[in-house]
Amino acid sequence: MVDILHAIGIKSSPDRVYQALKERRHLAGWWTTDVRGAFDIGGVIQFHFGTTGRIDMKVIEQVPDRRVVWQVVDGPGEWIGSKVSFELKPDGDYTAVYFKHQGWKEPSELMHHCSTKWATFLMSLKSLVETGTGAPFPNDVHIGRTD
Amino acid sequence: MVDILHAIGIKSSPDRVYQALKERRHLAGWWTTDVRGAFDIGGVIQFHFGTTGRIDMKVIEQVPDRRVVWQVVDGPGEWIGSKVSFELKPDGDYTAVYFKHQGWKEPSELMHHCSTKWATFLMSLKSLVETGTGAPFPNDVHIGRTD
Repeated sequence: MVDILHAIGIKSSPDRVYQALKERRHLAGWWTTDVRGAFDIGGVIQFHFGTTGRIDMKVIEQVPDRRVVWQVVDGPGEWIGSKVSFELKPDGDYTAVYFKHQGWKEPSELMHHCSTKWATFLMSLKSLVETGTGAPFPNDVHIGRTD
Repeated sequence: MVDILHAIGIKSSPDRVYQALKERRHLAGWWTTDVRGAFDIGGVIQFHFGTTGRIDMKVIEQVPDRRVVWQVVDGPGEWIGSKVSFELKPDGDYTAVYFKHQGWKEPSELMHHCSTKWATFLMSLKSLVETGTGAPFPNDVHIGRTD
């Protein structure tokens, strides 16, 4: 098992960051503009990426201002069953966000790509909360040949 | 042991990417502007980050247009002994760069931070090679409260 780990600091309160990880309109502002489904615990959030595909995340933990955990229930084969978590910690006038995407079976080429791509989406989350504008798909940062 | 993994695709030939990982003036264009030392195999490259610190990398592999591997011989405690590698693979009119920072003893908070920071420096490398302008320290992308 190998994990993708990241951290960012967002100049905002934990509750604003938490909202950005929980509510449809905020999720649509940093990961992909096309977000559907059910957003409370036990629900499945569908993140659509145009013709590229779709990732379905079951909400398995929601601790206000502290933590959000999703489990991948549909999407790219290597993603299925893996978990994505966001831990929030106050840090002065910032909120530190510790991100993990855990449960990869192998350090595949896709995993390398997704690690870098998650960093750019976390920067998009930071920008959304700090400035009101993120860079969600399809206006996301391109890191390679095909994405 | 846990690893930081990333991948980017750079619209350029492998030899131009290789130069950007080997020559002082190119390294100074994407990671930190203050680069000193010896750049051939067995040499130690010193990457200076102002008052923040310094990372000394021994060059342990250089395979033209294919691979560069460094070992950390001085720097932050958690970094010492770890290895940083760049594998280059032609991919159409792009060069895919598979990056690994291996040998972390623990998934510490610093490791999370460095994972995200490496992503931003790899985007800086991509930008340098594709456009001639990167974002090396001290003009690097800020991802947190103190960096």
